[in-house]
Amino acid sequence: MAGPLEGIRVLDLTRVLAGPYATMVLCDLGAEVIKVERPDGGDMARGTGPFIDGESSYFLSLNRGKKSVILDLKDEQGKRLFLELVKKCDVLVENFVPGVMDRLGVGYEVVKEHNPRIIYASVSGFGQTGPYTKRPALDIIVQGMGGMISITGEPGGPPIRPGASLGDIAAGLFTAVGILAALHERERSGQGQMLDVAMLDCQLALLENAFARYFATGQVPGPIGTRHPVTTPFQVYETSDGQITVAFVGGAKDQWPLFCALLDRVDLIDDERFQNSWSRTQHYDELNPMIVEGMKKKTSGQWLKELEEARIPCGPVNDIIQVAQDPQVRARDMITEVPHPKGGKVKVVNSPIKLSRTPALVKGPAPGHGAHTKAVLEELLGLDNDVTDPSS
Amino acid sequence: MAGPLEGIRVLDLTRVLAGPYATMVLCDLGAEVIKVERPDGGDMARGTGPFIDGESSYFLSLNRGKKSVILDLKDEQGKRLFLELVKKCDVLVENFVPGVMDRLGVGYEVVKEHNPRIIYASVSGFGQTGPYTKRPALDIIVQGMGGMISITGEPGGPPIRPGASLGDIAAGLFTAVGILAALHERERSGQGQMLDVAMLDCQLALLENAFARYFATGQVPGPIGTRHPVTTPFQVYETSDGQITVAFVGGAKDQWPLFCALLDRVDLIDDERFQNSWSRTQHYDELNPMIVEGMKKKTSGQWLKELEEARIPCGPVNDIIQVAQDPQVRARDMITEVPHPKGGKVKVVNSPIKLSRTPALVKGPAPGHGAHTKAVLEELLGLDNDVTDPSS
Repeated sequence: MAGPLEGIRVLDLTRVLAGPYATMVLCDLGAEVIKVERPDGGDMARGTGPFIDGESSYFLSLNRGKKSVILDLKDEQGKRLFLELVKKCDVLVENFVPGVMDRLGVGYEVVKEHNPRIIYASVSGFGQTGPYTKRPALDIIVQGMGGMISITGEPGGPPIRPGASLGDIAAGLFTAVGILAALHERERSGQGQMLDVAMLDCQLALLENAFARYFATGQVPGPIGTRHPVTTPFQVYETSDGQITVAFVGGAKDQWPLFCALLDRVDLIDDERFQNSWSRTQHYDELNPMIVEGMKKKTSGQWLKELEEARIPCGPVNDIIQVAQDPQVRARDMITEVPHPKGGKVKVVNSPIKLSRTPALVKGPAPGHGAHTKAVLEELLGLDNDVTDPSS
Repeated sequence: MAGPLEGIRVLDLTRVLAGPYATMVLCDLGAEVIKVERPDGGDMARGTGPFIDGESSYFLSLNRGKKSVILDLKDEQGKRLFLELVKKCDVLVENFVPGVMDRLGVGYEVVKEHNPRIIYASVSGFGQTGPYTKRPALDIIVQGMGGMISITGEPGGPPIRPGASLGDIAAGLFTAVGILAALHERERSGQGQMLDVAMLDCQLALLENAFARYFATGQVPGPIGTRHPVTTPFQVYETSDGQITVAFVGGAKDQWPLFCALLDRVDLIDDERFQNSWSRTQHYDELNPMIVEGMKKKTSGQWLKELEEARIPCGPVNDIIQVAQDPQVRARDMITEVPHPKGGKVKVVNSPIKLSRTPALVKGPAPGHGAHTKAVLEELLGLDNDVTDPSS
């Protein structure tokens, strides 16, 4: 079965993470992604460890299924070939600092002249406009500037960065959404357009509720450990032998009395301070020590069994090995294998987009640097060997 | 200017966060989103504080621009009207626990019979298949089970949940991507399909690099404060009067000597342990104390000025107020206003999807419960007042 984006061709100038994550999502959905890399080493993610048989695990994961074409955009012939490829593609994605594409002579105005139907997507730290536009940014810079670090951690504790690269990945996902929305619009108008996604803007989009609370109350959200700012219980609790998560479904009125019974605190069932999620949050400092004390009286296994029977959402706090071995993760085929460029197999995380008729699919291995230069230039531009030798 | 999804109509049965986030993204892009709410209070997010003039700030932010229709799917007439609406819509989104839609008699097989072109998107904690399928889940449950909490925090410190609801929001974004990909495919095939997104699956997708590292090395990633697992420097540093973030652009070979000079540690420039990002990460324990010591010798303001001049990515660690007041955030119009249902204005975070020709746009206020029942049923189904009274 072909993926839903079969027939869409993406010219991909992106490096490292935000852009490559966006094009990975599109590639898994069936788009043909042609990664254009510079002659000197290509995507710098190729140099990021740890390595598997000399290849970057970081690069292998993000670039599975893509093609690699070496073109030197600082060279006239490279630029000419690039603009010929532009005519054959539906989407262009780049994540240079704003201004670089114009300096290379391949900014949106030039590209649009060669292909008015192209969707030209730019991902950058701060966007194509505004006072910071030309500043370089990386994940932690926007996680710091956008407020994520300010609300992650223990109250009064050291700053904490969430363990995933949310600065990049959120921007990658919004870029994929924007590209697909623009492709949809092109079906009607016949015209392309430019998409301008800023990593900083996407941090605000992730934090919409922190901003909503601030706008509602004037109070600045701060770090609160594992609990939730507006619903209780909703956090990690220590049990007698480990940790588990517990949270209530909003509006499920039976969960509080059931939970009180499991805590052996039926005296709290009718306590007027604790009758709904918001009132329990308002009285958190009184309520939480009682829950903490009760949770310590049984093992994680006992708690998970009893909470599941009561239909109260709960779960273990898994490390990465435990996740990879989890029966649900295996049943959903969320860890899959692709060939390693040098033989053998590499495990990668699969696409979470499960479509019934045209499923997403990890298409194959990440490409060697320039592995498809000849094939792509021959197939799309009808060029022969001499011209397609990047050293010529 | 109309948004790129102008003309797409979404029947939205979702509640609280993952589903409403997906339909918010589509709504801002121009889709017409018809939120179907149960008679008894509707979306439970309406009860989530803090409140602005009696309305939930949580609900107002996520549901801006949507329409609200009250239908009781447990009632035969409500179900009949719902299935008539199905015929008029392009997309259906629901985030019930798997099995609920079937029990209500509006599962995919039934809906498909009424509209074979519909994209039927289900968002759930664990997906429509696998041993955990029927378990309820909320954000922290999947952040715990998916590994995010295991890699967030200080080494040896307490568990930390990232401050945003990444369990829900990641699923919302992948759902939006999946819906748009399926709509694209429908242009060619004329057929709809079912999309099955699991919050747990999406956690793995966010953590692809943690899994890549584990698969490459067999070592279990753990929490590491604010630093990055494979690149150095990349973290929050204390200055003489606060905290800032610093990170190097991958492959930029001049940044190390420039940074050493600013640290007043030119002796480190040629130290063979520190010549690239990966080798600096391998020697983190030797290197970091020297950087930490040097960073404390200047103020945040001095550092930001000097690092910017050296084109080394850096930034402040902002709280939510500082983000809202940031000149770049303002220049990008990332905080916008919508009318409050009871008068006045409410601030919300804007869409980060900036398209040149058909920009995303926050369309208007969140709807009162059932505010559009009459108008939608009249307009789409040609029904008169009597039938559209939900109490009839």
